[in-house]
Amino acid sequence: MTDTIDFDRYDRIRPIRWTGDALELLDQRKLPFEVGYVSCDTSDEVAAAIHSLTVRGAPAIGIAAAWGVVLAARTIEAVDGAEAVRKLEPAMQRLNDARPTAVNLAWALTRMRRVVGEAGPDWREVMEREAQAIADEDLAANRRMGALGAALIEPESGVLTHCNTGSLATAGFGTALGVIRAGVAQGRIGKVYAGETRPWLQGARLTVWELQQDGIQPTLIADAAASHLMKTGAVQWVVVGADRICANGDTANKIGTYQLAIAARHHGVKFMVAAPSSTVDMATPTGADIHIEERDPGEMFAIGGVRTAAHDIGAWNPVFDVTPHELIDAIVTEKGVIERPDEAAMRAAFGA
Amino acid sequence: MTDTIDFDRYDRIRPIRWTGDALELLDQRKLPFEVGYVSCDTSDEVAAAIHSLTVRGAPAIGIAAAWGVVLAARTIEAVDGAEAVRKLEPAMQRLNDARPTAVNLAWALTRMRRVVGEAGPDWREVMEREAQAIADEDLAANRRMGALGAALIEPESGVLTHCNTGSLATAGFGTALGVIRAGVAQGRIGKVYAGETRPWLQGARLTVWELQQDGIQPTLIADAAASHLMKTGAVQWVVVGADRICANGDTANKIGTYQLAIAARHHGVKFMVAAPSSTVDMATPTGADIHIEERDPGEMFAIGGVRTAAHDIGAWNPVFDVTPHELIDAIVTEKGVIERPDEAAMRAAFGA
Repeated sequence: MTDTIDFDRYDRIRPIRWTGDALELLDQRKLPFEVGYVSCDTSDEVAAAIHSLTVRGAPAIGIAAAWGVVLAARTIEAVDGAEAVRKLEPAMQRLNDARPTAVNLAWALTRMRRVVGEAGPDWREVMEREAQAIADEDLAANRRMGALGAALIEPESGVLTHCNTGSLATAGFGTALGVIRAGVAQGRIGKVYAGETRPWLQGARLTVWELQQDGIQPTLIADAAASHLMKTGAVQWVVVGADRICANGDTANKIGTYQLAIAARHHGVKFMVAAPSSTVDMATPTGADIHIEERDPGEMFAIGGVRTAAHDIGAWNPVFDVTPHELIDAIVTEKGVIERPDEAAMRAAFGA
Repeated sequence: MTDTIDFDRYDRIRPIRWTGDALELLDQRKLPFEVGYVSCDTSDEVAAAIHSLTVRGAPAIGIAAAWGVVLAARTIEAVDGAEAVRKLEPAMQRLNDARPTAVNLAWALTRMRRVVGEAGPDWREVMEREAQAIADEDLAANRRMGALGAALIEPESGVLTHCNTGSLATAGFGTALGVIRAGVAQGRIGKVYAGETRPWLQGARLTVWELQQDGIQPTLIADAAASHLMKTGAVQWVVVGADRICANGDTANKIGTYQLAIAARHHGVKFMVAAPSSTVDMATPTGADIHIEERDPGEMFAIGGVRTAAHDIGAWNPVFDVTPHELIDAIVTEKGVIERPDEAAMRAAFGA
């Protein structure tokens, strides 16, 4: 075992590349069967790429949008940042509208608007530095989270994850997958299991592929096999990401996460949530206050264009579920670890 | 609510039809997209149909094999049953080998061998009556189970089921789906949810289709959404079938069943196993003594010929899991209901 993490080996995927005059996005619609980058030369091309899921994952979308603003600036002239922001507003609005529910998209645009708005004649340099800073800070936060989360994991552990929370969803390294990468790099994690994550199969398509790129060989399981896996003793931790963490620690994440938390507690398996502090929403008191998005039932009926269910049937297709804080052993952000999270512990860590 | 069950309305699917000189099998490989029967004129055609999953479900396979023996008898002459059985042995062996792990297949052939072996010159009539009796008894057992199981369900209940345990897997009506049919017919069940059952999607392909044929509109869910569904209060009972029930009540069934049982207990949802008494195996003391079959990981990587996972990855694909008797509220067979099953209750019901 080692305390260091060989990032040259375990952090090789970059879904977003800035070339200096174009934004290249790893096309996640085609992964894992085609690996290729789409090049965006305009801010509207970036907006279209966000809308079409060419780039996905809340942090990754925010970073792409920030670079989209830089591309928009190519089309305007301005004497200072305040004038630039006024002229860029329509393009920023189109970026924001590409996927209005993704929190990090609005967050990144607000940050660009503020920093550039305060800049003088060198606003172009300020703008480009800020976009790069958003990306760099995300990567650094993930690496920090990885080290903090991995430190909780005993040597020779097996871990199970759900959905895709990896390099593909971030600037790099990933949130829950960052913890898993760090744990593998440090020799703490001997075996990685990935749930396939119906209906979109992010686990089967994206998570197993991106771990492979770093030389980690995960084992895919059906979502319904998780409890049987835990019973065999193969797994000591479940490590997942988060879409929103409430003021009491209740956590919304991909559908199926709650079921894993119940099963983990039943088997004495530990349960970890890894997410950047920007995911913490102290304004939402508990999980009961989160609206759970339900998507088109049609997503349950076909895979890759092949019909997989009977015709003319109904389906219930919630995208997220809420894991109550009582079932969470640790919440890991780049700011630290909260063990046995509850309202008091969350308030101590994140203020009111 | 009513105590009666309108079988004319709620039991319309027959996967196996004997025409008097051929065996017609509803082709389950093509359901729900093509509804058609395959006609078998020889016992080897029946064996091939069992092997290829044209007919599936342990009770259905046993019934098909019994009719296969009747077809084999067309090719021989014998003065009495004993001579007939000797001459039929090679054909029966080929039927048995079509799917050697299915308990009911061997059970049905053993029963045919014994009854025909004791017959005199009228062995052909005895044989055909016995094949018909195997089918009729299965249907009657399912209808009895349905009434017994439904009686446990309070009016206005929602139920969740897993895999396919219906008419398609039996002579008709089904085991767990028989309970659900009976509950709907009696006005006890207001809403039926079906888990899609990865990796083979028996829920999405077969269960929803066969309930539709009887005018019941189930709602399909991802297997991983079951706990979130229970949390909403929509479900009062989980009703599943069984592949083997041990002497202490531990029950092997389709992978994912155990996870549903854990989630059900967590939410105060009741859990019912419905299966014919032939599924009870008093020679196997506990679930720990059951060997869990693991199938080709490749079943996890494609659906309908479309690749759904990254290449060159590993997967773990157990077919069954074991639900410990502590998590089961009721085991229902045609012989009666065992509430809170344990070793003593099972011994009282099924002897040593």
